[in-house]
Amino acid sequence: MPSYKAPVEDTLFLLNDVFQWSRYADLPGFADAPPDVVEAILTEAARLCEEVLQPVNLSGDREGCKRQPDGSVKTPKGFREAYKAYAEGGWVGLASDPAYGGQGLPYTLAAAVNEYSASANMSFTMYPGLTQSAIAAIATHGSESIKDRYLPKMVSGEWAGTMNLTEPHCGTDLGLLKTKAVPQADGTYAITGQKIFISAGDHDLTPNIVHLVLARIEGAPAGTKGISLFVVPKFIPDAQGNPGARNGVSCGSIEHKMGIHGNATCVMNYDGATGWLIGEANRGLNAMFVMMNEARLGVANQGLSQSEVAYQNAAAYARDRLQGRSLSGIKAPDKPADPIIVHPDVRRMLLEIRAFNEAARALVVWTSLEADLAHRSPDEKVRQKAEDHLGLLTPVLKGVLTDRGFDSTVKAQQVFGGHGYVGEWGMEQFVRDARIAMIYEGANGIQALDLVGRKLPKDGGRALTSFLTEVQTFLKVNEADAAMTPYLTGLRQGATHLQQGTMWLMQNAMAKPDNAGAAAYDFMHMFGLVALGYMWGRIAKAALARKAAGGDAAAMDAKLAVGRFFMERVMPETAAHLARLSTGADSLMALPAEAF
Amino acid sequence: MPSYKAPVEDTLFLLNDVFQWSRYADLPGFADAPPDVVEAILTEAARLCEEVLQPVNLSGDREGCKRQPDGSVKTPKGFREAYKAYAEGGWVGLASDPAYGGQGLPYTLAAAVNEYSASANMSFTMYPGLTQSAIAAIATHGSESIKDRYLPKMVSGEWAGTMNLTEPHCGTDLGLLKTKAVPQADGTYAITGQKIFISAGDHDLTPNIVHLVLARIEGAPAGTKGISLFVVPKFIPDAQGNPGARNGVSCGSIEHKMGIHGNATCVMNYDGATGWLIGEANRGLNAMFVMMNEARLGVANQGLSQSEVAYQNAAAYARDRLQGRSLSGIKAPDKPADPIIVHPDVRRMLLEIRAFNEAARALVVWTSLEADLAHRSPDEKVRQKAEDHLGLLTPVLKGVLTDRGFDSTVKAQQVFGGHGYVGEWGMEQFVRDARIAMIYEGANGIQALDLVGRKLPKDGGRALTSFLTEVQTFLKVNEADAAMTPYLTGLRQGATHLQQGTMWLMQNAMAKPDNAGAAAYDFMHMFGLVALGYMWGRIAKAALARKAAGGDAAAMDAKLAVGRFFMERVMPETAAHLARLSTGADSLMALPAEAF
Repeated sequence: MPSYKAPVEDTLFLLNDVFQWSRYADLPGFADAPPDVVEAILTEAARLCEEVLQPVNLSGDREGCKRQPDGSVKTPKGFREAYKAYAEGGWVGLASDPAYGGQGLPYTLAAAVNEYSASANMSFTMYPGLTQSAIAAIATHGSESIKDRYLPKMVSGEWAGTMNLTEPHCGTDLGLLKTKAVPQADGTYAITGQKIFISAGDHDLTPNIVHLVLARIEGAPAGTKGISLFVVPKFIPDAQGNPGARNGVSCGSIEHKMGIHGNATCVMNYDGATGWLIGEANRGLNAMFVMMNEARLGVANQGLSQSEVAYQNAAAYARDRLQGRSLSGIKAPDKPADPIIVHPDVRRMLLEIRAFNEAARALVVWTSLEADLAHRSPDEKVRQKAEDHLGLLTPVLKGVLTDRGFDSTVKAQQVFGGHGYVGEWGMEQFVRDARIAMIYEGANGIQALDLVGRKLPKDGGRALTSFLTEVQTFLKVNEADAAMTPYLTGLRQGATHLQQGTMWLMQNAMAKPDNAGAAAYDFMHMFGLVALGYMWGRIAKAALARKAAGGDAAAMDAKLAVGRFFMERVMPETAAHLARLSTGADSLMALPAEAF
Repeated sequence: MPSYKAPVEDTLFLLNDVFQWSRYADLPGFADAPPDVVEAILTEAARLCEEVLQPVNLSGDREGCKRQPDGSVKTPKGFREAYKAYAEGGWVGLASDPAYGGQGLPYTLAAAVNEYSASANMSFTMYPGLTQSAIAAIATHGSESIKDRYLPKMVSGEWAGTMNLTEPHCGTDLGLLKTKAVPQADGTYAITGQKIFISAGDHDLTPNIVHLVLARIEGAPAGTKGISLFVVPKFIPDAQGNPGARNGVSCGSIEHKMGIHGNATCVMNYDGATGWLIGEANRGLNAMFVMMNEARLGVANQGLSQSEVAYQNAAAYARDRLQGRSLSGIKAPDKPADPIIVHPDVRRMLLEIRAFNEAARALVVWTSLEADLAHRSPDEKVRQKAEDHLGLLTPVLKGVLTDRGFDSTVKAQQVFGGHGYVGEWGMEQFVRDARIAMIYEGANGIQALDLVGRKLPKDGGRALTSFLTEVQTFLKVNEADAAMTPYLTGLRQGATHLQQGTMWLMQNAMAKPDNAGAAAYDFMHMFGLVALGYMWGRIAKAALARKAAGGDAAAMDAKLAVGRFFMERVMPETAAHLARLSTGADSLMALPAEAF
């Protein structure tokens, strides 16, 4: 059976030592969360995740969700009880507006809790996760009456939410969507069409589910400029705000899929369902994009979450499993064999995962803090810089943390040998669950295009310039510190490659857009490595400082060792990315479509 | 529903154009297989794979194998009929000794057929595949009476075979195995113990199953030098050679695993089962190693097989699926969107797979031909060179073709977006099935250690010298040919990196064995890239020649384009591997075991 322990210490180190949490104490919400309160919150979240959510992860995978003959959906054993504990603990609305019953705490804390929760049980965490996305959409775009009707029940977790975008013939290209909305005399719309791949589309965790649905109002323009956003509750709230009449929306079937079996991925049929317009007509995609950044950060976090729990189990196994002898001489003479952690190649796999995890967590914390600044800072310049950061880094985090997170689960599975391929250790579930994060909320190739095609050139490249300047400043400020040298050399090289890659794009992508498309994926991963490397620089600096102050030498030494591994063995990949992207689009476009 | 078409044309191109099949016409078995016969055999195999095996692949995954209350195992619907067709077609014994009813054809043809068969249905193919391994073991080490009793029935496919090595506490380190063999008065042994992860351990395809079992004869030395190999039939053959008394071996349970659900992976319980010693007592591991090369090549072939079938389906989907518009202008103005094959990043994924597949197939053909030479050439020097090749390249093929083959299935799945994550298109099955090949027959980290620790230094590095000399000669011979330049530059660079990596190992691994362990995985992958790159050089040369001779211009142009892609976009990875391995073991060994 797999196990999980939430990395509370590491999160606290990042919040306090690396990002100096107390600097933000004057922002709304942060004042309520001084370091001791943060520690208490994270510790309580850890307990819930370890003791309630994780124990039903493997069993939830085996059992899956079941659609009943009446179209209702049953979640796996234990999910209802787990959800009750989660909702009653106030975790759904941790960062939501207190006006609707939320705790108003920083988003950064919600992101940390979501990492733990997804590590413990990714399928489960998607239920409240989608509610959080729906809350964000309604809070930003809903009328006061819509907000009053739905938000209190969603923030408390009493009702759940979903996002309905995809249709059989359109996922990435939402301009093709066909679901139609016919205006009714009472100002509502009759929604008709089919949506697919709807996570948490139906379930038995809550008495009502609030669907956010993209549809095309009759007569609206074709393409993306004719799409509107609607709220379509499963049960229409009655005058008292309780679930009333059953609406014309139902789960037609549950997808048979590779993983996240504990989450019901539904085909949703809308058959003249009553919907209320959210935001402006024909501006539904813009309304969606508002919550895209947070949703994508959430998915990035899932990549980290599976990598973390996979690492923990693989490390424990490597310390226990006796097999073979160390190349450098017997290490456990009293045992029939050495634990496999003596083997350099087993350590390589573990360290590749660990070196990713700690830096990825730092990236999530950093970017979440910027999200908080973007929403909560009174200083317009700070908000703009934060928005720049979010726009630029979100596709990088989504693409790179989910790609590398998936690779981590594959490596962790490999540490187990054959025992990783069978179900009982749970390692193969992490692989199957992690895989979806590379696909949903915009497949990673789309993230790369978003980065290169939209985010890089935006505002004359202001966001990238700001990022690179920050990295260069860090390199400069620390170059005289010999203890920092191992953490700067690889980063400097990577940053140079990133600049060269950017230059190549500027010189080659304007005249020939296919060059941008051909370079995008490598550029995104190169960027990700530099961002992760910069995080290692920051972590090393904080670790050296804490050690110098006499704190936690062993833990800090471990960080310094893992960071050195990252610089020596992971950062060199930037060169390959640069070499590849610099070859341009020709070798990609040469083959005629029919020759594939 | 996924589809599959066996790449007969490509195999024939490799056999005839690249490796000049007719050169071997004077070897035993090759005389019976001139090009037209080869084409007929491959075409017939293709038909069986496409029409019989592939149609029960997805359904076999869904249904899985079921252990009945009496301990017998039921394979999925259609497997019995498929097996009947496979056995009656003579495919089990295609390359087996005619003295036992085999067709005596070159192993190279069997390898090609096994690729097709595994592409069509990997779970199914493992049943006859394990029989082929068991045949090889008995043929090499069995006494005449054992051979006469078992081989005719196994070669015909009437009976199946299995390999029983792994136990709960030992996989890689077989020296720890505990299954015991107690000598009986009649010369047989009573075998008692538990084996796990036994592929095809029990099933309903054949009336008898011949288990090859590693066990320790009572009183034998500890460790690997006290292990013997036994044949343990499920039913003991009676005087007429038919299945007689039920032996004391049975399937205790079927593993719940990530993939290859159509193959029964069994816990096998031996309870005083009657076994016959094969080969010398205490030399069982040596007997096993004889068939290791072929078994590992077979697994390498599985990596290719899943990559190929995943590619075919992804390419077809990319040509059909309409989504978004080309960055360089609308390509299908009559349609609501362009097919996604217009997007450079979709082409990148497809070409990374395709560029691997064609070169990997060449590596399998090349190495299979060397296996044929090792067994069939009358010239001792040729045999020795072939053995060198096999020893050196087998771990590279096993490790690299299964790692990259798995990556291919993940990329092909990505081309499908959300449709790749659900079951109906079959893409997620390829990922789950391909994953096991990185683990069994020696996990890939073990292949890397075998390469660096054993195969490189063997005979003073003779095998590697021979490989590098062949590559250098190829580079030299073709350097004046301008048409070949795109296929030489990247290869030259890669070969240089491989030499530098080898030098680094010579200088650093002797004094400090952990440096070998730390470098092994990167070295193996660097070697694999050079080997794949060399194959692209050979393919390009043959394609240019065929084109010059007026043949198949479109098909040859496609090869030349894909090869160029490989050189520009894949070969640069060798630099990262060299950079990583040259950092040595320090950053891997610094962290104490308890700090993981």
